[in-house]
Amino acid sequence: MASDSLASSDESPVKGIDDVVHQRVRLGVLTIVNEARRVEFQFIQETMGLTAGNLSQHVRVLEEAGLVKVTKGSAGRRPRTWVSVTRMGRTALLVEVDSLRSLVERVERSGGSTP
Amino acid sequence: MASDSLASSDESPVKGIDDVVHQRVRLGVLTIVNEARRVEFQFIQETMGLTAGNLSQHVRVLEEAGLVKVTKGSAGRRPRTWVSVTRMGRTALLVEVDSLRSLVERVERSGGSTP
Repeated sequence: MASDSLASSDESPVKGIDDVVHQRVRLGVLTIVNEARRVEFQFIQETMGLTAGNLSQHVRVLEEAGLVKVTKGSAGRRPRTWVSVTRMGRTALLVEVDSLRSLVERVERSGGSTP
Repeated sequence: MASDSLASSDESPVKGIDDVVHQRVRLGVLTIVNEARRVEFQFIQETMGLTAGNLSQHVRVLEEAGLVKVTKGSAGRRPRTWVSVTRMGRTALLVEVDSLRSLVERVERSGGSTP
């Protein structure tokens, strides 16, 4: 037998989860940019406590996947970078959240077992 | 201003999320091993559609973090590897699931906005 007691499902608990969206920093970025029309790069950086380099790297992955759009501009003399979610990015976030909801419910269902 | 409309929170949406547990494969493994007293390596591999090498790598990370225990044995002549969750692993999974629940709710709250 595969396990000492029956697993609650023989389906992968992370089915439908995509690393591009699931990765911790990128999931945080998508969640934040989904909350406004566009969000300043520095605001994301401060909210998440990241270095500019680390955030840039992850924003680039999201941009290359078509999930966010990056625009450069300025406020007065200060250069600014804005990040906004694309329609595809919003869909990807909602798919991820659906998968996470299922996973949370699955773990809750097995809440009775103790190691 | 930081964003064109107020973000629903200036708290990081991925606060409390730890890469060791959050990473897709490891999150799946922890979820599965939390569902039984111990689970056969090959069962996890098949359920998640992974190569043995890839799964081994992730199980090692979990083992080194003290989140799972690996035991070797045999059923008849066939060698078998079993994976079980530790108390610490179970706690880590529940902490992750708490964070995921908050994130899911946060994304649901911003459901009205369109990109």
